[in-house]
Amino acid sequence: MTQLLKNYAVLLLSCPDRKGIVASVSRFIYEHNGNIVHAEQYTDTEKGRFFMRIEWELEGFKLKRKQISSFFSPLAQRFQMEWSLHFTDYIPNVAIFVSKTSHCLYELLLRQQSGEIGANIRLIISNHPDLKPVAETFGVPYYVFPVTPENKEKVEQEELLLLKEHKIDLIVLARYMQILTPAFVAHYPNRIINIHHSFLPAFAGPHPYHQARERGVKVIGATSHYVTAELDAGPIIEQDVIRVSHRDRIADLIRKGRDIEKLVLARAVKLHLENRIIVYENRTIVFDT
Amino acid sequence: MTQLLKNYAVLLLSCPDRKGIVASVSRFIYEHNGNIVHAEQYTDTEKGRFFMRIEWELEGFKLKRKQISSFFSPLAQRFQMEWSLHFTDYIPNVAIFVSKTSHCLYELLLRQQSGEIGANIRLIISNHPDLKPVAETFGVPYYVFPVTPENKEKVEQEELLLLKEHKIDLIVLARYMQILTPAFVAHYPNRIINIHHSFLPAFAGPHPYHQARERGVKVIGATSHYVTAELDAGPIIEQDVIRVSHRDRIADLIRKGRDIEKLVLARAVKLHLENRIIVYENRTIVFDT
Amino acid sequence: MTQLLKNYAVLLLSCPDRKGIVASVSRFIYEHNGNIVHAEQYTDTEKGRFFMRIEWELEGFKLKRKQISSFFSPLAQRFQMEWSLHFTDYIPNVAIFVSKTSHCLYELLLRQQSGEIGANIRLIISNHPDLKPVAETFGVPYYVFPVTPENKEKVEQEELLLLKEHKIDLIVLARYMQILTPAFVAHYPNRIINIHHSFLPAFAGPHPYHQARERGVKVIGATSHYVTAELDAGPIIEQDVIRVSHRDRIADLIRKGRDIEKLVLARAVKLHLENRIIVYENRTIVFDT
Amino acid sequence: MTQLLKNYAVLLLSCPDRKGIVASVSRFIYEHNGNIVHAEQYTDTEKGRFFMRIEWELEGFKLKRKQISSFFSPLAQRFQMEWSLHFTDYIPNVAIFVSKTSHCLYELLLRQQSGEIGANIRLIISNHPDLKPVAETFGVPYYVFPVTPENKEKVEQEELLLLKEHKIDLIVLARYMQILTPAFVAHYPNRIINIHHSFLPAFAGPHPYHQARERGVKVIGATSHYVTAELDAGPIIEQDVIRVSHRDRIADLIRKGRDIEKLVLARAVKLHLENRIIVYENRTIVFDT
Repeated sequence: MTQLLKNYAVLLLSCPDRKGIVASVSRFIYEHNGNIVHAEQYTDTEKGRFFMRIEWELEGFKLKRKQISSFFSPLAQRFQMEWSLHFTDYIPNVAIFVSKTSHCLYELLLRQQSGEIGANIRLIISNHPDLKPVAETFGVPYYVFPVTPENKEKVEQEELLLLKEHKIDLIVLARYMQILTPAFVAHYPNRIINIHHSFLPAFAGPHPYHQARERGVKVIGATSHYVTAELDAGPIIEQDVIRVSHRDRIADLIRKGRDIEKLVLARAVKLHLENRIIVYENRTIVFDT
Repeated sequence: MTQLLKNYAVLLLSCPDRKGIVASVSRFIYEHNGNIVHAEQYTDTEKGRFFMRIEWELEGFKLKRKQISSFFSPLAQRFQMEWSLHFTDYIPNVAIFVSKTSHCLYELLLRQQSGEIGANIRLIISNHPDLKPVAETFGVPYYVFPVTPENKEKVEQEELLLLKEHKIDLIVLARYMQILTPAFVAHYPNRIINIHHSFLPAFAGPHPYHQARERGVKVIGATSHYVTAELDAGPIIEQDVIRVSHRDRIADLIRKGRDIEKLVLARAVKLHLENRIIVYENRTIVFDT
Repeated sequence: MTQLLKNYAVLLLSCPDRKGIVASVSRFIYEHNGNIVHAEQYTDTEKGRFFMRIEWELEGFKLKRKQISSFFSPLAQRFQMEWSLHFTDYIPNVAIFVSKTSHCLYELLLRQQSGEIGANIRLIISNHPDLKPVAETFGVPYYVFPVTPENKEKVEQEELLLLKEHKIDLIVLARYMQILTPAFVAHYPNRIINIHHSFLPAFAGPHPYHQARERGVKVIGATSHYVTAELDAGPIIEQDVIRVSHRDRIADLIRKGRDIEKLVLARAVKLHLENRIIVYENRTIVFDT
Repeated sequence: MTQLLKNYAVLLLSCPDRKGIVASVSRFIYEHNGNIVHAEQYTDTEKGRFFMRIEWELEGFKLKRKQISSFFSPLAQRFQMEWSLHFTDYIPNVAIFVSKTSHCLYELLLRQQSGEIGANIRLIISNHPDLKPVAETFGVPYYVFPVTPENKEKVEQEELLLLKEHKIDLIVLARYMQILTPAFVAHYPNRIINIHHSFLPAFAGPHPYHQARERGVKVIGATSHYVTAELDAGPIIEQDVIRVSHRDRIADLIRKGRDIEKLVLARAVKLHLENRIIVYENRTIVFDT
């Protein structure tokens, strides 16, 4: 699935559905000598909207990277497209927010190390010092910002400065047990990914495993979603579940849950970093084949 | 898992946890020359309660079936047990309630026909005539009771008469689109099994697939539970899920959901009929190995 | 996923990979006023081969159905395409071969009845009379051809006559316990779908569950594949698995296996009938999104 | 599932099936004032053999640990039991063998660190120096033994010395790419656990992903098993699978496979260390509830 070695352009677009979109976009690429290596489309017939992800080789392509946007722009306007252009050799800058639990952090660091996730993990921010040794092992700077109700706004300002300074493209909340303010979230629309340890919309809030045990469910889940101003209500990127039974106490649910939390989060981050997601009306279109 | 040909006694029990329960129960069986073929236990350490399912061969057992309860009673009292005794050659009488969709009904009838579910399906009750031909194919009497807000109570009285007449042990709501009154439910505590087409507690109520589509979930579920006075809030017996994507419209969710609804319901009914479930404080202990 | 009500053309093609394929095909459709509703492509970079499935609305399309092939032909030749054209309102004729077990047969008949599988099930052929009542329930003609080593060739000749007479497009072996001769298979290349009750290539041959029990596996599988001259070695369309344990005896494996056999077979048949499969060098490219 | 804080005795036993086993064993425990917290049994009716795992609290138990075996021995002889006694506060010594890939090693080290796996990981042995930094991060001694066909026997002698010196109870082959000699294996019967990167018995041998790609399977698997003299043929402990498609190249299969390899291995190691496995005639009875 991931394209190795070669460089590619990736175009993500959506527009009102009408005839000629695919023909026009593919002709644009072909006319400039591009070889399409992957394309995926989706039409939401209820809303009459068309979505597309198209990927082509940059080698031999007759437009320079800087030119592509301006040359594509007239076509985009004709079809009233919302669109974004990406290059697969750009490695996005990522900041990870954590609290005290390490499994999601390790998962991201190990997958980055093994090359599965293409990211520059520039820094780790935490409200606790506990995971500093993990950060050091992987050579990632670790910043501690203790958060209280009183200093929250001020802390977020400092964090934002740090994030801007490192040109962060994506923030990953890897079991960060603080709620970000809407003001903070507004700086990174659809660019903050959270992992919630339940199968949303069931068991939103801070204690999903206790609720799951109380209700006697036979399956527990994990949900990765973009963070919006409303808690646990942002566009869902990925979900998965694991079977449990009456024998599983809270501690067992936490242990079993870890295995899906980290997997679901890692998948969501990978999808985002590979530019496979379009958000539309609080839902995600995920081009994952 | 199911024991074929031979006859067995099954004892389901729960009591405050203390020493000597297993020793006493197994000695009771051994003293009367019984061969234990399966036993499973569970201790809820938080609540200090012990649960057990134990199964032994009736062949060679020195107590007659009618005697077992009275001989076991003193032991049960000593440990303050709640308990029930079952024999595997008793085939329970089952009534199935349906509305217009057939997939759950077919699933139960076919599994009964193939011997997977040991049940006498004595009758099918519906608020619509649509599925009569299915019932006829399998030779099961089909009763139509159109339900309106006005006649609901009266209809339920007639249904109860019919159920008593056929000595019904278990009622299965196989996508029956009517809510039973608490008065009706009270006649069959933990003996009415429903299938809800969502992963409860997410999306309770009548339109789970529409809610799932609206929320943009990546997994949909089905839940089988005992019916209690509170809608969709009874003890969960079994749940399962299936992956969906942004491409799946309501019609696709309905189609995909059918496959898990019927499986989840069939599993729950089988577990109940094999006396593998104990209900305790609105949760189920399921002995399924 | 399935397109309802409207009629669509579906083009399946493969050719050596080169620039301009997507642009040319999409322009062909656009020039004749077609609206592409779905397109999916795949490039096998090792073999340098391009595969595509593209679907467009026939309403408003300026070529008549009969014209499309001849108009498309020059483009196809230029790119050295292997291709086939299909229309979604053509309902293929299907023959089902069975022996004595009914679960796969029921699954296909019920899904056809509910509209999930778009097929005219024209006839059922068996080497045993056992499932005649099932066929009658659904109003499908049932032909019994007892097979012996001596009469096999002759029987296949008669079956072929019957299949030609009914213009059968697809043969489904729904747990048919006879091996078809290579001569028979040659009449329906990539148009005979079998269900094998193991996770191929493990446990090929007639007794997979016995082998699975003997080897002590913890998961069993089912495999649906196109039938070729070599037994159980044709292109795999779909596979799935289910967990088992040391407790599962042969009878339990057979029971559990039924649930995945019928699902895997039904999915494979649906994929074929919706023209989502291209076979290339004994493997399938499955366009299933 | 795991018992925390308190200490327990675990008895694993198997014997010819006959009446009175459960009664005798549970009475033995009760007579010495033991509280059974978990018990699980299985009868292989084909072979007429009974298997049991029973766990009771040591606190208040009137036999000292050293006495239990001699007191239990007469009962065991009467029933011709094969049996072993374990204490949950004994933390087994584990050696991990690796080559160059790190994902399985990390999985074990991280789960040990988080307390999910109760093991003293005493040393890591490798035929390559590559993973030394990982070992150092977790403070585990790392020994490099380059292996050639010529020196294999001699190397194994040195390794055995090291293992004896550290009183190793369990060897885990975490993607160790060398075949151990039968002579070596004989020192640790049912105490060497391997992870094979396929769904055995499919694709035994060194290149399962290449074979999987070649055969065009739609699901790949991983298998954890005890190592025996015959390659990839030992008793299977745990298996799992993941879906793949025609799009997945060898590199993708390797990537996807990693996720199940490490999970399947970790589960098998945990089951072994918790004394939940009995091996009988090259199959495992796994008491996992």
